[in-house]
Amino acid sequence: MKLTQKFQQAIEEELKRQLTRLDEAHTQLYYEMMTYHMGWTGEGAGPKATGKRLRPLMLLLTTAAVGGDYQSALPGAAAIELIHNFSLLHDDIQDNSPTRRGRATAWTIWGVPQAINTGDGMFVLANMALNDLAKTQPAETVLESGRIFQNACLNLTRGQHLDIDYETREQVDVGDYWKMITGKTATLISASMEIGALCGGADADLRLAYRDFGHYLGLAFQVQDDILGIWGDEAVTGKSVASDLIERKKSLPVLFGLEKQGEFAKRWTTGSVRRKEDISELAMLLEREGARHKAQEAADQMTDLALNALRQADPQGEAGMLLYALAERLLNREA
Amino acid sequence: MKLTQKFQQAIEEELKRQLTRLDEAHTQLYYEMMTYHMGWTGEGAGPKATGKRLRPLMLLLTTAAVGGDYQSALPGAAAIELIHNFSLLHDDIQDNSPTRRGRATAWTIWGVPQAINTGDGMFVLANMALNDLAKTQPAETVLESGRIFQNACLNLTRGQHLDIDYETREQVDVGDYWKMITGKTATLISASMEIGALCGGADADLRLAYRDFGHYLGLAFQVQDDILGIWGDEAVTGKSVASDLIERKKSLPVLFGLEKQGEFAKRWTTGSVRRKEDISELAMLLEREGARHKAQEAADQMTDLALNALRQADPQGEAGMLLYALAERLLNREA
Repeated sequence: MKLTQKFQQAIEEELKRQLTRLDEAHTQLYYEMMTYHMGWTGEGAGPKATGKRLRPLMLLLTTAAVGGDYQSALPGAAAIELIHNFSLLHDDIQDNSPTRRGRATAWTIWGVPQAINTGDGMFVLANMALNDLAKTQPAETVLESGRIFQNACLNLTRGQHLDIDYETREQVDVGDYWKMITGKTATLISASMEIGALCGGADADLRLAYRDFGHYLGLAFQVQDDILGIWGDEAVTGKSVASDLIERKKSLPVLFGLEKQGEFAKRWTTGSVRRKEDISELAMLLEREGARHKAQEAADQMTDLALNALRQADPQGEAGMLLYALAERLLNREA
Repeated sequence: MKLTQKFQQAIEEELKRQLTRLDEAHTQLYYEMMTYHMGWTGEGAGPKATGKRLRPLMLLLTTAAVGGDYQSALPGAAAIELIHNFSLLHDDIQDNSPTRRGRATAWTIWGVPQAINTGDGMFVLANMALNDLAKTQPAETVLESGRIFQNACLNLTRGQHLDIDYETREQVDVGDYWKMITGKTATLISASMEIGALCGGADADLRLAYRDFGHYLGLAFQVQDDILGIWGDEAVTGKSVASDLIERKKSLPVLFGLEKQGEFAKRWTTGSVRRKEDISELAMLLEREGARHKAQEAADQMTDLALNALRQADPQGEAGMLLYALAERLLNREA
């Protein structure tokens, strides 16, 4: 069995073990809400519904790439994935999203009050998973993991706060954007790498290199996602072309376009863009005014910083090669 | 200065210190949502808005009553109060409550998405506060506190799940009730006592006694609250008489009444009780059918168990006397 597959299987088993805490007679419905959201039960359950488990996979690869035993980091990997899923549960309510990964979101099935509570419970389970590191790691390592983890969680809520706030705010600039995606996207990836390295016994410098790698990887990925959200190939991304423009998302290209105060900014501000042709024209204006180019430059810059940090970290063995390959795939994606 | 006052002041200072983590230029609005909910800022800010800080006070009294230094337990006390307030933030959304402690609830001011996120952030701050115990306590104590704390948090979400579920469910019995209030009310009080004892250096037996005290105190308090919710003196409770009947709350007296399958059950099930006279009659039927008496017996039983556990814990010094006094006040309250 390949290493990636082995790790992914171990992650799924650890996640299931962590969730059994709610597998009790009087909380079966609660348990079901959790297992549904994790993609294991209910309509549409299966690999497509679980998501890629990218963050825990990167955590375990890091542990192995610094010479540690991946099994000693498994509860930490589960903790990161549970936090990610907690944030999705609340995100879906906050964004009023009816579907995720092609399935009905929890709040549409069980109502907002229960979905809020299920997210809260998943947050607690994440903390419990992290505490389980005490079974394989010294107490000081568990506490240090806890500090990294809680910092990431607080950043996540900072990013979410800014994201919600920006939706209704007229004035958002590029500086705000970086703060927002640092919290919403980069912080959890960078915490995954740092905890992975810590559990593998890496020293402070090495942990820092992995943390930086995760940070810039997250930023590069998000900017790339923003570009694809406007100019992506519909057949590859699965989203309709320019979907971010239709949703009036204040993504990086849009913010660059607004900064320019040209024709795009004028058209965007009037806000009466509905027809398909208008959207195409908006995208064209953005490109003509250099916003796509600037966004791509930003993505390339973050990619360089990520790869520099990874080279400095110098990950070892098969896990190390897989980390390079994964970074390559995430950073050069077409979709 | 009296001990209670000294502790309360220390709690407030510690809480403020914990929240400064969000006192940054780009998260001022986020910080404001937190400080508003804590009762420190905004319209109606002040002692009435902060609530009684009962749980952290009991935690510190316990630390002192087992011979420990209350200051070494302060971050734990803050953690408990932050978790309590996190649950209130989400509770208000889940219950659709427009006011709390006489003030507008956070979601009515900043919207549901931001209020969910503020609750999440307060949960993270609670975990960070708990981790701060590492500054004054050995690593093993911090980890053990973490286990007690996360267990309480998971129980809290279990109780909340059941509470939301029972609202729409026709069949709820007395057994369900105990499970629900154990999670919603007793678990956080019992964790406060246990963490307080642990931080004060108490051995396992002593911690258990304090935990039991908190558990039964919480149950007794909730049952008493249920009785007052129907037969309480309006002038003392501040709620209208029989308010729980109007809201059709499945409180303990109601569940006893339904069990009886008499006239009360018949009237309750038809559900068409609206007029003031109907409510008074329902309350009268409940009393006549013995439900008030049974509920009072249950409260008395829980009170006995709580006081037995406290006697066994044998709290020492001024803090010990204050614990007895506090228990007395909570258990024999008229409101």
